[in-house]
Amino acid sequence: MNPTKRTKLGRLPNRGSHEFETIHAILDAAFLAHVGFQMESQPFVIPTLYGRDEGKLYLHGSAASRMLRGLETGLPACVCVTVVDGLVLARSAFHHSMNYRSVVAFGTARKIEGAEEKTRALRVISEHLIAGRWSDVRGPSDKELKATSVLEFSIEEASAKIRTGPPVDDEEDYSLPVWAGVLPLRLEAKAPVPDPRLAASIKLPPYVLPKE
Amino acid sequence: MNPTKRTKLGRLPNRGSHEFETIHAILDAAFLAHVGFQMESQPFVIPTLYGRDEGKLYLHGSAASRMLRGLETGLPACVCVTVVDGLVLARSAFHHSMNYRSVVAFGTARKIEGAEEKTRALRVISEHLIAGRWSDVRGPSDKELKATSVLEFSIEEASAKIRTGPPVDDEEDYSLPVWAGVLPLRLEAKAPVPDPRLAASIKLPPYVLPKE
Repeated sequence: MNPTKRTKLGRLPNRGSHEFETIHAILDAAFLAHVGFQMESQPFVIPTLYGRDEGKLYLHGSAASRMLRGLETGLPACVCVTVVDGLVLARSAFHHSMNYRSVVAFGTARKIEGAEEKTRALRVISEHLIAGRWSDVRGPSDKELKATSVLEFSIEEASAKIRTGPPVDDEEDYSLPVWAGVLPLRLEAKAPVPDPRLAASIKLPPYVLPKE
Repeated sequence: MNPTKRTKLGRLPNRGSHEFETIHAILDAAFLAHVGFQMESQPFVIPTLYGRDEGKLYLHGSAASRMLRGLETGLPACVCVTVVDGLVLARSAFHHSMNYRSVVAFGTARKIEGAEEKTRALRVISEHLIAGRWSDVRGPSDKELKATSVLEFSIEEASAKIRTGPPVDDEEDYSLPVWAGVLPLRLEAKAPVPDPRLAASIKLPPYVLPKE
C-alpha cells in the first residue's frame, strides 16, 4: 500500500509500516476498535468489537446505534486498533515510552442488507472474538437480524506502528543508578465464570479454557 | 453533568452515567486514550497516553506530532477511554456482549507553554502511568521540554458506559445445553524485563513488582 498524506508516517517513521501483512496481523491480535467519525462538526470516537475478512472489517450493533446510522451513510471514518505490549522505563523521564502495536485505517462503511450476508458477517465477528463459539450457540433469528445493523468497513488506506524492545537512553544516562527496562503488559483471560443459571452438567468448552 | 445531544445516552441508557465520580474512576483505571479529531474533512483516531487532574486530561508527545499540532489549534476533539473486563458468552449469538467500562469525553485542548507548568503536567502523566517513577528518574532538560508538546484537554462533557455481570438470555434459551458465562479479561503486568545494559547491582523498584 502506498502512503498518501493521511497515512504518511510523520513521527518516528522507523516504527511504521504500510505492509498488508503487518497491518492484518495487528488487526487479528485484537478485537476492540475505536471508530472515529464526525457528525454536525463534532468528532466522535466509539469503542466497538469487529471481525476481519481480508481488507474488510465488520462492525455490528443495534439498528438504533447513532454510530452505525452515521457510518452507513458513507461518512469518512477512521478505525484505530491498539495492542499494548508494555511500559518502557528509561533512566530519564523523556525517554519513557510504550511498547505497542497499532493500526490506523481509513475508509467508509456500507450497510449489509441480506439476511445471509449479514449472518455471514456476524459469524466473522464472532469467530474473530472467540473461535469455535458460533457453532455452539443458537444462531440469529429473523427478528434478531432485523434488530442488528452490520456494516462492512473497507480499508482504503492504513498504516501500522510498532515499538518493541528496551528503552533507548542518552549515552550519559546509562550510568545513572536507576532501574530501567520493560514492564510487559498482556490482556489475559482469567478463570471463566459460569452463568448463575448454568446447569451443572454443562462442561466448559475448549475455547474458554486457559491457553498454555 | 447534564447531558446534551452529544452525550445523551442513546442505546441502553441503563448502562450509562454522567456522574463525575464514575467518569473519573474509569479514566483512572486506564492509561491509554483514543483521541479523535477531524482535519481537512478526514477524521483521525490516534492512541495516546494521558494523565488526569480533576476534569482535565494531559496529553503529550513530540512537538512535531500531527495530532498535537492539530489539537492545540483548538479543534473540537473527542477522547475515548475503554477498559475491557470480559467477554459475555450467551446461549444465543444475539445476546453475546462484552463487559467493559468506557468514557467518551468532549472538549478542546490548549498548549501548555511555561517550563514549570509543562513539567508539572508531564509529572501528572508519569504518575498516572506508574506512580512513584517520576522521582527516581532524571527529569526533563530544557532541550527535552522544548522538543515536547504538552496539551491540556478540558472535559466539557462526558458520558460513561459500564456493562457488568452474566449474560442475559431469552427465557426459552436457558434450557439449551450451551455453556454460558463470562470470560474475564484483565490487562496484567508480567515479570519486568531489565534493560540489557542495566547494572546488576540495581534493584527492582516497588512499582514494577507484581501486585498481590
